[in-house]
Amino acid sequence: MSHRRTYKVAILGATGLVGREMVKVLDERRFPISDLVLLASERSAGEKVNFGKRSIVVQVATPERFNEVDIVLASAGSEVAARLLPDAVERGCVCIDNSSAFRMQADVPLVVPEVNPEAVLDEDGIIANPNCSTIQLVMALKPLHDAARIRRVVVSTYQSVSGAGRKGIDELAQQTIALLNQKPLDIEVHAARIAINAVPQIGDWGADDYTTEEIKLVAETQKILGLPELPVTATAVRVPVFAGHSESVHVEFESPLSADEARALLSASPGVEVIDEPRTGRYPMAMDCAERDEVFVGRIRPDRSVPHGLAMWIVADNLRKGAATNAVQIAWLLDQQWNAAQA
Amino acid sequence: MSHRRTYKVAILGATGLVGREMVKVLDERRFPISDLVLLASERSAGEKVNFGKRSIVVQVATPERFNEVDIVLASAGSEVAARLLPDAVERGCVCIDNSSAFRMQADVPLVVPEVNPEAVLDEDGIIANPNCSTIQLVMALKPLHDAARIRRVVVSTYQSVSGAGRKGIDELAQQTIALLNQKPLDIEVHAARIAINAVPQIGDWGADDYTTEEIKLVAETQKILGLPELPVTATAVRVPVFAGHSESVHVEFESPLSADEARALLSASPGVEVIDEPRTGRYPMAMDCAERDEVFVGRIRPDRSVPHGLAMWIVADNLRKGAATNAVQIAWLLDQQWNAAQA
Repeated sequence: MSHRRTYKVAILGATGLVGREMVKVLDERRFPISDLVLLASERSAGEKVNFGKRSIVVQVATPERFNEVDIVLASAGSEVAARLLPDAVERGCVCIDNSSAFRMQADVPLVVPEVNPEAVLDEDGIIANPNCSTIQLVMALKPLHDAARIRRVVVSTYQSVSGAGRKGIDELAQQTIALLNQKPLDIEVHAARIAINAVPQIGDWGADDYTTEEIKLVAETQKILGLPELPVTATAVRVPVFAGHSESVHVEFESPLSADEARALLSASPGVEVIDEPRTGRYPMAMDCAERDEVFVGRIRPDRSVPHGLAMWIVADNLRKGAATNAVQIAWLLDQQWNAAQA
Repeated sequence: MSHRRTYKVAILGATGLVGREMVKVLDERRFPISDLVLLASERSAGEKVNFGKRSIVVQVATPERFNEVDIVLASAGSEVAARLLPDAVERGCVCIDNSSAFRMQADVPLVVPEVNPEAVLDEDGIIANPNCSTIQLVMALKPLHDAARIRRVVVSTYQSVSGAGRKGIDELAQQTIALLNQKPLDIEVHAARIAINAVPQIGDWGADDYTTEEIKLVAETQKILGLPELPVTATAVRVPVFAGHSESVHVEFESPLSADEARALLSASPGVEVIDEPRTGRYPMAMDCAERDEVFVGRIRPDRSVPHGLAMWIVADNLRKGAATNAVQIAWLLDQQWNAAQA
């Protein structure tokens, strides 16, 4: 099939970790781009970013830059998104936003293409890209829910520092070197020292003393699955890993679902790869998922502490499927929809 | 109260991480020792270990060394324990064993002194010291169970490498340095590379594809709490932390129990310290618990995904309360019991 349309695409926050990954994924997946505009704050303007064989100069993100743009992929933080994207929509853009600014607005679709692609049809200019830890969770939950209906989910996360951007990575590296050399260290990005530690705080504090990361994980999972009352509970923890989030997940179902059935369902799910031969040392790990687009699931086993329980271990690269890859997949959904509308 | 008895104490595995910690704790807690015998394998015999102001030469652990010994604190692995301790019992010793060799035997008490001290009364020569991750869990569960009866427990662990002994610590250090210098690295102790990673395997594989660490955590918790049918499920994960195990725990109760009530109950529990002022950054972390005897509990909050649910975050030094301190506390229980019998 040849494409009937090509698009002028803008990336907002193009010099950040996720922004650069978006540029890479757009190229890898050959998105039909007529023009690529890279936008960032004044501080980063003038930097050059490679897109395939081209080198593109990053420009300051002013409202006028969004003129004539078809699709914006935004990864610039909630404040910038809230300030710039509604205006970009006025100028005719459809914005796929990776911040949490719009995710829980009732009229904004929150989309994981393998899970709820139909939600894109309701877009009114802004489509939200879910939180990284949510995306990998719902990718594994959806096929199992369709088979046996989920009754409750308990998640504990092991999240990498790349979720806090380049500064989050630098801080872990610097703190680790300082500790190994018994030198003093700085704490600026993460809530506490992250080197050689596990920090049970990601984000700020919300209702019931849950963190914003935990609240997002619960609310976004419910919204994406279309199950606003689904009992989900989460503990979100930062661990000293550079890239890749891991999740320990215990799920209770309405109907029986064996570990073998779950493995078969997940193996057949697009975007999911089952790695589950524990006795030969094969299970998913953060160290193996970097730069991979799949969500990896393993340690699938019965949870006999509850009727119809299953436990599993879910790992994904939070910058790829957890952010950039998912956003580019949403852009492809828009392309399909617009081509279908034109046909 | 002056002590009516003093004891000849032997430490089996005296040069290991836990063995050395046992020597330290015996001294710190002024256990009434008439003679301290330090035993290890041939490889370590001849090493000197400080006990207070004395320096004691480690001897080879032969059966004869246990003659005249009152109390053995053993931390020498399951095989050595199974080989040497029954004979030591024949020679009149009471053995407090930190291995998993005897823990699940029906006639062997498995004791956490703050939780089930009465179990010591049933000792028939061997008392088992529970697994490190179990001890800190039951310390937090028991007071809450007494108040509201536990219905189900879901645990995900974040366990430090010191649980795998000195070699486990060295391997994390060496791998971290190798990674930061982009050099090749060795994997010998842990199931997979532990530096900059999270490894969902501790121990070997048992029924239902659970690890032996997960199976221990469930079975030992049930045994210590005297609730053999209690629904408990666990995912045990090694993280790149040198000392201190953390646990994300979601508990369901029969009766309502608020976070405030739980905090009050835990604050009043001997051996437990509540650190739970999240909005000022106060919660327990592995980096803060080294060389501390307490079990630290924080992030106590309602788990609204289930009736009467609570979530919490439990941290302890696995070498102290998780091993050496608990063993020495059991020795103190024996002392109390024997003094009472004599009186």
